[in-house]
Amino acid sequence: MYCVGIDIGGMSIKAGVVDENGKIKKHGRVVTDVDGGAEKIADDIAGLVSSLADFSDPDFAGVGVGSPGAIDSAHGIVNRAYNLKWTDVPLADMLYKRLRNKPVKMSNDANVAALGETVYGAGKAYSDTVTITLGTGVGGGIVIDNKLYEGYGSKGAELGHMVIVVDGEQCSCGRRGCMEAYCSATALIRDTKKAMLENKSSAMWKFSPSLDDVDGRTAFECSKSGDKSAVAVVDNFVKYLGEGMLNFANIFRPQAIILGGGVCAQGKYLTDKLDAYCKARNYGFEGVPKFDIAVAELGNDAGIIGAAALILADGVAV
Amino acid sequence: MYCVGIDIGGMSIKAGVVDENGKIKKHGRVVTDVDGGAEKIADDIAGLVSSLADFSDPDFAGVGVGSPGAIDSAHGIVNRAYNLKWTDVPLADMLYKRLRNKPVKMSNDANVAALGETVYGAGKAYSDTVTITLGTGVGGGIVIDNKLYEGYGSKGAELGHMVIVVDGEQCSCGRRGCMEAYCSATALIRDTKKAMLENKSSAMWKFSPSLDDVDGRTAFECSKSGDKSAVAVVDNFVKYLGEGMLNFANIFRPQAIILGGGVCAQGKYLTDKLDAYCKARNYGFEGVPKFDIAVAELGNDAGIIGAAALILADGVAV
Repeated sequence: MYCVGIDIGGMSIKAGVVDENGKIKKHGRVVTDVDGGAEKIADDIAGLVSSLADFSDPDFAGVGVGSPGAIDSAHGIVNRAYNLKWTDVPLADMLYKRLRNKPVKMSNDANVAALGETVYGAGKAYSDTVTITLGTGVGGGIVIDNKLYEGYGSKGAELGHMVIVVDGEQCSCGRRGCMEAYCSATALIRDTKKAMLENKSSAMWKFSPSLDDVDGRTAFECSKSGDKSAVAVVDNFVKYLGEGMLNFANIFRPQAIILGGGVCAQGKYLTDKLDAYCKARNYGFEGVPKFDIAVAELGNDAGIIGAAALILADGVAV
Repeated sequence: MYCVGIDIGGMSIKAGVVDENGKIKKHGRVVTDVDGGAEKIADDIAGLVSSLADFSDPDFAGVGVGSPGAIDSAHGIVNRAYNLKWTDVPLADMLYKRLRNKPVKMSNDANVAALGETVYGAGKAYSDTVTITLGTGVGGGIVIDNKLYEGYGSKGAELGHMVIVVDGEQCSCGRRGCMEAYCSATALIRDTKKAMLENKSSAMWKFSPSLDDVDGRTAFECSKSGDKSAVAVVDNFVKYLGEGMLNFANIFRPQAIILGGGVCAQGKYLTDKLDAYCKARNYGFEGVPKFDIAVAELGNDAGIIGAAALILADGVAV
């Protein structure tokens, strides 16, 4: 059995033939023709699928789609996707008609990536995970018993928008103090710049000679050689991320929390610090299970593989 | 069809015959013989059930039990219950043997009460709810598609222990800044006393002439006549509770959040303020569903009715 996973992005639509072990066997890609509208994009996706899979092959089980925006997964509708300029687009139905009635399942791209990591990536030893992706924003997904949990109407699982500091830093969502405002790469860069401005002799100025050069690595790399300002930035980042992770632990008690996004290139240097922070503060009484911390393994393929998992692993919670 | 719901408390064990509409038809009660040990308590529960239900009646469907502590619901084991002095007590099995092999289901008392409120109480118009109980601590439960969600191994859903203020007020769980440390009756009383000490001319001193007289009503009642210090305490309470509720909304997107506990005697005075706070801050883009706010209706019967719902509504999530 195999299926095609589709990862719709604002710039390009990526596709892959994915086997039942979650391995991508063939890749495809087409530019996202946002101005062409939804019908054109559906045509393009159908073209991609046709170029990759043989409809007469009984092993071709269907098509999974990860889309940005607010998705009604149960009905395969993209309710809102700003970067695609879509409102209430019934994409699953549009594809089903174009794909000779092959099964089509759809979900939010971040959720789908979390499913992919859990079923085929860093979480494959686990059935219950929370995935947190630390990028420009903070996103992620919740997997319960190997199925995606997306909240009622598939409108929840907005993991980055849990306030951990009432009245804290301004968040893009309008509230203050969200996890995203402390644990995104954007927040890390903001805090790194602030620390550099406060200490003109920090080694971070050598790593990133101007503030425009600062990225998510600056504080982490300089903390490794003991630069005090860099260490403070990293410790702070670990603290806020750790508090967010502990919150999810107390709600979901996942077997593992999987971290994704560029910051996770720090690997064990980051996860060891997080592990120490969280183990010392895990909730409550003796016998409460602690959680493992894993780093996402599927990289840019998580979207394609996770979309495929919607079909291969029957991934969407009812 | 009917069943018996059992609500184990530290002082007494309450029982009720509950019909399929969630109505209690007969009550029973026995003192909790903590020093007698688990076998004695199982005997006492079996005695209560026998006094209330007829085992030969095919309409008698089984027994649901709500127990304090950390429960393994899937296996009916009380892993830890400090006030019962229990560790790994297989209570469901112990009852099953004593109850002529009638079905026995068990879960945590706070979770069970949330299930009862959702299926038969304030949440009966909804399938997906979060219940938050504001008492000495803050507890609650999560209901997804009319079934309890308790986290992996039924060790999650610790709703009061979500940090909303990193480095904030000390919480009983060891962390700082948990929702419990801001939204419990204990926290409300702490903040009320603090405001009174800061303003010796506050009307709160008339309502509660000494600090020992302060309870969860002091600030609320005095805020109604416009006492500035009382209004500030209430506004602050609403703000922190609202932020916690918005966090749960972004994760679960429940149709309703049900509030329980003594503070909810304030009814519409409290929920109107919360509603205004939350509606102005609901996450994100157009089209994200807002949630209703309801006040728990079952009172002290929520435990019995919720325990019964484990059987009547097949309430535990797999």
